[in-house]
Amino acid sequence: MHILLCGSFDDDERDAWLAELQDALPDARWHLTVTPADAELITAAVVANPRPGSLRGLPNLRLIQSLWAGVDRLLSDPSLPDVPLARMVDPAMSAAMAETALWATLSLHRHFYAYARQQHARDWQQLPQRRADEIQVTLLGTGQMGSVCATRLLALGYRVTGWSLHGGTVEGLSLEHGEDALWPLLARSDIVINLLPLTAQTSDLLDQRFFAALRPGAGLINLARGGHLVEADLLQALACGQVGHAVLDVFRSEPLPSEHPFWSHPQVTVLPHVAAATDMRSAARIAAHNLLALRDGQPLSDLVERSRGY
Amino acid sequence: MHILLCGSFDDDERDAWLAELQDALPDARWHLTVTPADAELITAAVVANPRPGSLRGLPNLRLIQSLWAGVDRLLSDPSLPDVPLARMVDPAMSAAMAETALWATLSLHRHFYAYARQQHARDWQQLPQRRADEIQVTLLGTGQMGSVCATRLLALGYRVTGWSLHGGTVEGLSLEHGEDALWPLLARSDIVINLLPLTAQTSDLLDQRFFAALRPGAGLINLARGGHLVEADLLQALACGQVGHAVLDVFRSEPLPSEHPFWSHPQVTVLPHVAAATDMRSAARIAAHNLLALRDGQPLSDLVERSRGY
Repeated sequence: MHILLCGSFDDDERDAWLAELQDALPDARWHLTVTPADAELITAAVVANPRPGSLRGLPNLRLIQSLWAGVDRLLSDPSLPDVPLARMVDPAMSAAMAETALWATLSLHRHFYAYARQQHARDWQQLPQRRADEIQVTLLGTGQMGSVCATRLLALGYRVTGWSLHGGTVEGLSLEHGEDALWPLLARSDIVINLLPLTAQTSDLLDQRFFAALRPGAGLINLARGGHLVEADLLQALACGQVGHAVLDVFRSEPLPSEHPFWSHPQVTVLPHVAAATDMRSAARIAAHNLLALRDGQPLSDLVERSRGY
Repeated sequence: MHILLCGSFDDDERDAWLAELQDALPDARWHLTVTPADAELITAAVVANPRPGSLRGLPNLRLIQSLWAGVDRLLSDPSLPDVPLARMVDPAMSAAMAETALWATLSLHRHFYAYARQQHARDWQQLPQRRADEIQVTLLGTGQMGSVCATRLLALGYRVTGWSLHGGTVEGLSLEHGEDALWPLLARSDIVINLLPLTAQTSDLLDQRFFAALRPGAGLINLARGGHLVEADLLQALACGQVGHAVLDVFRSEPLPSEHPFWSHPQVTVLPHVAAATDMRSAARIAAHNLLALRDGQPLSDLVERSRGY
């Protein structure tokens, strides 16, 4: 089995991925570039943000396996071959995402960002403490990552409601779906966590209209994509108190430009896209599992519906 | 039933406690001061850091019910009457304590304190991400609060070991006890959370010897009492890198004096004694439950062993 590995890695990253993938699938022949002679041999590509056009000219390609969970950039490449595309659904990554969501939720609920500002001012002041079951957390996105986050938040006693555009079910979680259901849900939310895929429908969802619908002073946690958030609208919502604090892991432009107002905003926590790093060990094994299924004619997992965008 | 309510509250706090206690025990007669004529009537005292000597001259006192979990200050009053003393064991308070322990553990494990420093410096840098099951968390203290913290940490996948001086069992938790077991445990700990009661044996436990025994760069979370920590020794351990970061909720002197070096130390997170505020609603109901047991001759709960100190 001949597999192309390509992405926007530096050499060390590429070598580390290659080692993990070879370890997970020792019988495969891995290609890092494609010569005209090889092109017909390649039946699968394992990709991580490949340059647009990288997968052209592979006549026998039958699977594109992404090493990232989000495939919005891949799908924006009009030359992407029309073969099955699988995204990465990795329990290790979902666990890491849930850790970040839990940390940000606890930080907002228990005023730990406010206490950090107080420490800076040498101010000793105890703020009101609410119980977790008095806090309404709304999870936008109820896929694998949203489910794990919901389970962890429910275990701590939070009131959690999941929302997605198209429905679905998560055990033990109250769920709403469709745009009409969103606005009343926002009005009773203390904390909103965004884990949606970035699609034409969800792009710019976190805008002025969204913030105006929130319970005043609500906390926003964006762990999904920078393209979900209209940054200027968030700055306005923070200025008028409609959003109390925002925890942002993803941005329109990354790294966040050094002159960006988010860096020094007292009500914004900036994370450098670290909510859930890919765990190479488990991701390589999951990719290998799908590649073996391809080889053996078994059903493929985690296939993207291109019309839906994820 | 005549009950004395006394403590170092301001008027608003006292009135709020009185309202909750009257609500929980409507038939009792509550006294805020004792006249010579009343002294014989009082059979129980509900206390929250009362001034030393406050409980003298009550010949028929049969129970002292603390509204606080820690009774170290009460026991340091040599005039404290020798009658059953109950401390507050409140699931709502344990849940709040577990939230704080979880937040601090996640903050250390996932570098969120480091990312806050990076934000201040407009520095976009991704630090290595470890899985929760690669992190050894050691819980000092395995009472009600320690058990709830352990359960929550285990659910997130951390490796958790409990330690106490005198043993005990917590379901699903690996436990060690006695001073000899402490040193090897510290050597393999990434994060240490202190929830011990303050007694003659645990006072100053977190000292130079303790820090020297830690795995270099370990995180320290002190949520118990300021008297556990030798502050100058911690500053030295931070300076030489033996402790990587400390999260401190309690201090020798509170409020923390404004000139104290902890306030501006980049490796110290200062919280203003907020890890677990007493929840008046549930604490009043728990106190009422013990007071009714006293009235009805039923067994009393959560009694302190004075020789042990908690």
